[in-house]
Amino acid sequence: MKSNIEIQRVEKSNIENVDFNNLPFGSVYSDHMLECDFVNGEWQTAVIKPYAPISLDPSAKIFHYGQSIFEGMKAYKDADGNTMLFRPLDNCKRLNKSAERLVIPQIPEDIFMDGLKKLLEIDNNWIPTNEGSSLYIRPFMFASGLGFHASPADEYKFIICTAPSGAYFAGKVKVLIEEKYARAANGGVGFAKAGGNYAAQFYPTQLAIQKGYNQVIWTDDNSHEYIEEAGAMNIFIRIGNTLITSPTNDRILDGITRKSIIQIAQDSGIDVEVRKITVSEVISAAQNGNLKEMFGAGTAAVISPIAGFGYQGKDYDLPELENPFATTLKKAITDIQTNKAEDPYGWRVMV
Amino acid sequence: MKSNIEIQRVEKSNIENVDFNNLPFGSVYSDHMLECDFVNGEWQTAVIKPYAPISLDPSAKIFHYGQSIFEGMKAYKDADGNTMLFRPLDNCKRLNKSAERLVIPQIPEDIFMDGLKKLLEIDNNWIPTNEGSSLYIRPFMFASGLGFHASPADEYKFIICTAPSGAYFAGKVKVLIEEKYARAANGGVGFAKAGGNYAAQFYPTQLAIQKGYNQVIWTDDNSHEYIEEAGAMNIFIRIGNTLITSPTNDRILDGITRKSIIQIAQDSGIDVEVRKITVSEVISAAQNGNLKEMFGAGTAAVISPIAGFGYQGKDYDLPELENPFATTLKKAITDIQTNKAEDPYGWRVMV
Repeated sequence: MKSNIEIQRVEKSNIENVDFNNLPFGSVYSDHMLECDFVNGEWQTAVIKPYAPISLDPSAKIFHYGQSIFEGMKAYKDADGNTMLFRPLDNCKRLNKSAERLVIPQIPEDIFMDGLKKLLEIDNNWIPTNEGSSLYIRPFMFASGLGFHASPADEYKFIICTAPSGAYFAGKVKVLIEEKYARAANGGVGFAKAGGNYAAQFYPTQLAIQKGYNQVIWTDDNSHEYIEEAGAMNIFIRIGNTLITSPTNDRILDGITRKSIIQIAQDSGIDVEVRKITVSEVISAAQNGNLKEMFGAGTAAVISPIAGFGYQGKDYDLPELENPFATTLKKAITDIQTNKAEDPYGWRVMV
Repeated sequence: MKSNIEIQRVEKSNIENVDFNNLPFGSVYSDHMLECDFVNGEWQTAVIKPYAPISLDPSAKIFHYGQSIFEGMKAYKDADGNTMLFRPLDNCKRLNKSAERLVIPQIPEDIFMDGLKKLLEIDNNWIPTNEGSSLYIRPFMFASGLGFHASPADEYKFIICTAPSGAYFAGKVKVLIEEKYARAANGGVGFAKAGGNYAAQFYPTQLAIQKGYNQVIWTDDNSHEYIEEAGAMNIFIRIGNTLITSPTNDRILDGITRKSIIQIAQDSGIDVEVRKITVSEVISAAQNGNLKEMFGAGTAAVISPIAGFGYQGKDYDLPELENPFATTLKKAITDIQTNKAEDPYGWRVMV
């Protein structure tokens, strides 16, 4: 059963004002957006309409209590001009996991999936075809209900916007292993894509940037001995020929790129270990020459290679390898995403 | 130097539609609001204007990255009809501490203070005079700048809204000492009044409510052995004749009601200990009859007495005392707030 979607088209597209050869990340928006309101205990008819400002009462709880969640996805064009999504249902399911933890009503899968596909159909021309570019998709939900009482709202908005985008990071990054600040508590919301998790990272990240790094490597909040995430991405560390990443838990995001990389790496014969990894293990490996690679993994950057890191006032460089896992794995995953390679996993969804 | 404030008055007040004898908490709004925009690296002229919806682009970072902070304050009328604020500069300073941690530009004290006073002057008739009622004041700041890049926004809004309000809680509350979930990480943003801290509490609080409790008593995220906060308030525990509260740290809010109570209690000859307090100490005291009182302290509820608590599947009742500290201290603080008593501390500010 297809959901009923109301469609209001723009009178005139804005596409001719966009330079697709010089796309920033996430700051140019397509003509349309999908909006669906949760009112009186139920989701109303979804509407695809011109991308336009949202009007909210100043007492809307989004402004006061951080009740907001989001997802990040990408749509690609293959060589034949078909539109490709990557594991989109996983984003919907994760959004609903985040929703549960933030006491936001779950979005029905048909509204999410059918609404997204219809939106991509209508804004088909906005999906970039240039190498390295894609249509970044931002589904999000937030509390639009009113009141200064610190309790869940009674109304919500689910919105999908899209933005033709270039690369998220340019080049390799230098990271700082965090020893003081933390992004998530045990029993907290670190596993969810909750808005507040990101704002909480800005200050420590800014301090790291002032010291000459691009991003923070987050460690556990209690001992700062365990490596958890890299900036807003999951982290992979290669020691010798073994690729290691932390297991997910209530502090660590269950990244879709992360789990895809684990699968592809295992199937490529790479030795993958999903286990806790200590800072001291990484330092030792750096010192004895066994630390080969570190990279972040997430939808926005796909794979973001790390050139070096700082810890306790000392900088460590990573070697320049000829055929790093990062390059091989990034090619493998983007080839699947863009329909340049077979997809044995059934991850790719043609719109 | 007074700030320059632009004033746009409502054509017709909405006050005649409000029943001041049956005020809810924080859901009826006064005629005007103050709004000040941070654009191009500086705060623009503050505007007092009719309370009305805010229009924001769907890519405004408030919807995505939880970059928002707030304060809670109250204005009271004294017997002569003068308007009283309580330690307002402390709220401004704390808002700016929260701002620093969330990478939001600090609001100049003159915009905050002069803007607030002018707003209260214009909406003077909205300040309730009934016993137990007050004008709840909600200053807040959030990221209005655009973009899907997870980084601080380049534009912000500072807004003050007010809401004539009745009591926050009705009667005594039953609380659940949390053993699994947590509200704040070490090195996180728990000390700040960041929006995301509140949304993160909704789910565990909902579980507690389903079990028959009103609120959660938060414990540290690592061992769950130390008592930290009560719902969205600080917590005080009386064992024998000693009143104990946790020291503030990066997980615990530096409550203005909390520090006022500590001061008043000390000056009333009550033995006050500001120190870490364990769950096991509270359980032992409950078992041997030394646990006399527990209460939450915060601006909204002032003091919220706790009737009993649950821990590890067992319920503990607190005794009904004839002259509890909670009653004495609540009277002392509200008498200062409403100009019924001398204010030896200089906390009260007449508008």
